[in-house]
Amino acid sequence: MSTEGIEAKMDDVKLSDEANQAAQPVGDAEANGKPAKEKKEKKEKKEKKEQKPKAPQPKKKTGDTELIGITCKKSEDLSEWYQQVIVKGEMLEFYDVPGCYIYQPGSYRIWEFIQEFFNERIRAMEVENCYFPLFITEANLQREKDHIEGFAAEVAWVTEGGRNKLDKRLAVRPTSETAMYSHYSKKIRSHRDLPLKLNQWNNVVRWEFKHPMPFIRSREFLWQEGHTAHLTEAEAGKEVLEILDHYAAIYEDLLAVPVVKGRKTVNEQFPGAHYTTTIEGFVPAVGRGIQAATSHCLGQHFAKMFDIRVEDPDQEVKEGEKRNKLYVWQNSWGFTTRSIGVMILIHGDDKGLVIPPRVANKQVVIVPVGINAKTTGADREKLYDEVDALRRTLVAVGVRVACDTREGYSPGYKFNDWEMKGVPLRLEFGPKDSANGVVTTSRRDQEGQKSTIPIADLATAVPALLEAIQADMFKRASDEYAAHRKIVREWKDFVPELNAKNVVVVPHCTGGECEDEIKKDSSGSVEGQEVDVRAPSMGAKSLCIPAEQPEGIEGLKCLNPKCGKDAAMWVMFGRSY
Amino acid sequence: MSTEGIEAKMDDVKLSDEANQAAQPVGDAEANGKPAKEKKEKKEKKEKKEQKPKAPQPKKKTGDTELIGITCKKSEDLSEWYQQVIVKGEMLEFYDVPGCYIYQPGSYRIWEFIQEFFNERIRAMEVENCYFPLFITEANLQREKDHIEGFAAEVAWVTEGGRNKLDKRLAVRPTSETAMYSHYSKKIRSHRDLPLKLNQWNNVVRWEFKHPMPFIRSREFLWQEGHTAHLTEAEAGKEVLEILDHYAAIYEDLLAVPVVKGRKTVNEQFPGAHYTTTIEGFVPAVGRGIQAATSHCLGQHFAKMFDIRVEDPDQEVKEGEKRNKLYVWQNSWGFTTRSIGVMILIHGDDKGLVIPPRVANKQVVIVPVGINAKTTGADREKLYDEVDALRRTLVAVGVRVACDTREGYSPGYKFNDWEMKGVPLRLEFGPKDSANGVVTTSRRDQEGQKSTIPIADLATAVPALLEAIQADMFKRASDEYAAHRKIVREWKDFVPELNAKNVVVVPHCTGGECEDEIKKDSSGSVEGQEVDVRAPSMGAKSLCIPAEQPEGIEGLKCLNPKCGKDAAMWVMFGRSY
Repeated sequence: MSTEGIEAKMDDVKLSDEANQAAQPVGDAEANGKPAKEKKEKKEKKEKKEQKPKAPQPKKKTGDTELIGITCKKSEDLSEWYQQVIVKGEMLEFYDVPGCYIYQPGSYRIWEFIQEFFNERIRAMEVENCYFPLFITEANLQREKDHIEGFAAEVAWVTEGGRNKLDKRLAVRPTSETAMYSHYSKKIRSHRDLPLKLNQWNNVVRWEFKHPMPFIRSREFLWQEGHTAHLTEAEAGKEVLEILDHYAAIYEDLLAVPVVKGRKTVNEQFPGAHYTTTIEGFVPAVGRGIQAATSHCLGQHFAKMFDIRVEDPDQEVKEGEKRNKLYVWQNSWGFTTRSIGVMILIHGDDKGLVIPPRVANKQVVIVPVGINAKTTGADREKLYDEVDALRRTLVAVGVRVACDTREGYSPGYKFNDWEMKGVPLRLEFGPKDSANGVVTTSRRDQEGQKSTIPIADLATAVPALLEAIQADMFKRASDEYAAHRKIVREWKDFVPELNAKNVVVVPHCTGGECEDEIKKDSSGSVEGQEVDVRAPSMGAKSLCIPAEQPEGIEGLKCLNPKCGKDAAMWVMFGRSY
Repeated sequence: MSTEGIEAKMDDVKLSDEANQAAQPVGDAEANGKPAKEKKEKKEKKEKKEQKPKAPQPKKKTGDTELIGITCKKSEDLSEWYQQVIVKGEMLEFYDVPGCYIYQPGSYRIWEFIQEFFNERIRAMEVENCYFPLFITEANLQREKDHIEGFAAEVAWVTEGGRNKLDKRLAVRPTSETAMYSHYSKKIRSHRDLPLKLNQWNNVVRWEFKHPMPFIRSREFLWQEGHTAHLTEAEAGKEVLEILDHYAAIYEDLLAVPVVKGRKTVNEQFPGAHYTTTIEGFVPAVGRGIQAATSHCLGQHFAKMFDIRVEDPDQEVKEGEKRNKLYVWQNSWGFTTRSIGVMILIHGDDKGLVIPPRVANKQVVIVPVGINAKTTGADREKLYDEVDALRRTLVAVGVRVACDTREGYSPGYKFNDWEMKGVPLRLEFGPKDSANGVVTTSRRDQEGQKSTIPIADLATAVPALLEAIQADMFKRASDEYAAHRKIVREWKDFVPELNAKNVVVVPHCTGGECEDEIKKDSSGSVEGQEVDVRAPSMGAKSLCIPAEQPEGIEGLKCLNPKCGKDAAMWVMFGRSY
């Protein structure tokens, strides 16, 4: 199947004039090389778009109903599958500004669970939430050279206010380092003001010309950005890793998505950072890595540009002698709504979304079964009363439950509808179940395996089952990632392993030019390899230097045969989003 | 004292070219008429700005310390007082984009409490949170005529992305009706899809040329905006009032701020609304009303423009006959960070902020007392251990506590510092208290009244005391509002009552032109009235038609002697923010 081109298909809205300018390389092979094909795809997509999306709808008011579910397989066309799943699963809707999307309640609720989880952890670290303005003056934005170079190509500018031209254009924040650090320089007047730990949950805009992909790469996205200042490098470094642990916990404990912790190579670090730590995910369907979240130590670069310094409290000074001024050590760290897309790509299946229980808005749906047009009103009412009693039992123990008592829809229709939306556990309940004192269970993550729970055990068995689903989803994804993370020691195996949908961990010199060379040499068609003509393979880039290093780097040469240097670290490479 | 000009002084940053264009009237008397004075003030403010703000700081490392507190009285210069209180109390910081402000943790935490409170209530109404894009296409923004007319003068436009001009400029949302309703038209395909109830928490931008005032009127602000669609007007109307009740509860139950519920006159309603309900607050220090929050029934205007309709489910149809299409009834309702400013203006005093306990980030501060340089290390350690035990007792019952064990600061310095930040309750604890088994209490809202609580009772007495403080703060503000809400039956009393810092409830025809006339005739100096030359009085506008109407409107004429019509309702008028 296609290992790329997915973003191209995602771009369902005409990119207007800007798209033409995307022919300029923007540091990514994906945007280039296939103008004719893309144009065609765009046209098809446009036509498709003009039809109203097929939301589940009964054909008639009563009797048979037909659900228009996911009409393609995840393994056959990931791009089309992803678009159908997010729209029909009611996670996201398309919008008439290219690269901007509507986060429907289905996805926004997941974001709220993430916010609650992370807020609790950072509050325990004495990080405080705050809010800085959306707009940044150009003068401020340009105060850190590497930083502005990293963002200049993708800043959206406000130039008009009401009916007037602005005197000076204003940047819509792509990130808030420069908005915040003038404030830090006022706020931090003494070592007693350290550490300063602020976080904000907000929206940022990066007017990228790469092809957008809902959740994964959009022009506006939601995130949190933490910005802290410390007296010492050691203290800053400790926090960078604590935050990375929390990020990994969001993915692994909430979203059931495995990640690999590590550090970015210099080539891949944040513009203006001292170093960048990262967690890297993996999308098995395409064998591509995906950056999951990053936590940066900014060092003293910004402190120097924004003059954030304090007197050295530990210096021994004589009477009348002045204390040295120390620049503070700063961190910034961000976690975005991309995480929701990663979760969908990893867990979704041919029936639609599969939401891990801990972040599911509805964890359980109860569907009454075994009644039909011939059922008497009294029998129906009795069953519905019993269903409501089940619901109340579960709500009382904190389970988030929906009851689907819609008339005119068959149980089968309802099953498919809730499966498409990814509800982790379905409880079926009919007159037979009632007579037996049980409910019938059907796990979203295990196709076709039904079981029963005695009604008396519901309050304990359902929460336990939800936790089991959560754990099983993580284990399955984790095993799959591990199976596709290959140690490669020789260049000849590098591209074949990528083509087999793996990421690879290789001995590497960690040099930037060497990385560029590897990227170049691993792209395009490779002799002797079968290549899908629809999807020429992109080059592999370094994803991270994993924190857990395999043994035996000593004495190895860099994998790149053109390099010749000694290997410094095991580095994870892969094709990636 | 000055009853206006407060916004002019708040504008601490040069408004660049745009300010010059503000000479165009923008529907408010405040912006006009005093160019020379404003310029001078602006210059003074600018000079002031260039100094670093005076954060509390000890002069020496140990021994005497001096707190630079609020240096002016609320009753003498509200403008200067407000600015000092919000900055020194660490609620807000100024920023280098005019009209945009930094929400420090002190104020943002209050916003989070409001979010939690309101989310719980709207979830019970089955409203779901979501997120729509920041940018709106011009074509979409213009689809409802009254709406765009209401906002055209204050939309910020993005015209450049990266290094390119955009083909079509994009509006930064001033509100999201037009962003959301294209989606509604897709989403609502049948009466079964109703009601649709979505809410979002986000930032909006209104590039106003009126003078900004932190929290109260800013170019970017945070809010929630709820947007719902219903089958019937009755159902929509019921929700409008439920939401208004929740808004009133946020003010009264959380912020301890009394409000008057009512409906806006046609002159003052939301652009594009069918009708607007409102809660109106009151700032006693200046005798001005302030719009607290609004909940609108949009009627079917937007539904017609965006083609949001469903088949009539209640229509009796014969075989083959088509059902009529009904346009849906829509509501929108919004609550903003302005509420935090209202709270500060009402409760703050000459020592600084006074935060109601339910929204205070720190509800209690424990300050160790009775120790000095001569205290032995062992005694100090014993006291600090006891202080920490007090803290743990309170934390265990859910009280939010700070312990101020900073060295080198006197208790007096600490008292003033926490008073400035508005912490509702101070507990003092020294060797004498320890010997007596008590803590000494000092309520922020009651100057100089100290009391004691037995340590054994701490876990119950402190939460009870915090609730008492909350209730007392609300009662005081409520009594004051009631005392300044005067029923006026004759025109001759209208302006004198306004000048006595009241709002007035008058018999009125509810006509728009008549309102304009009243506004004109109540502005400027009035014969026989003493006028503060620094503050020519602005005209009064209608604040609302109170839901609780005084008796006896029948047979009364409109208060405006030039009108001559019969009075239709009692209408509340006032000078206002």
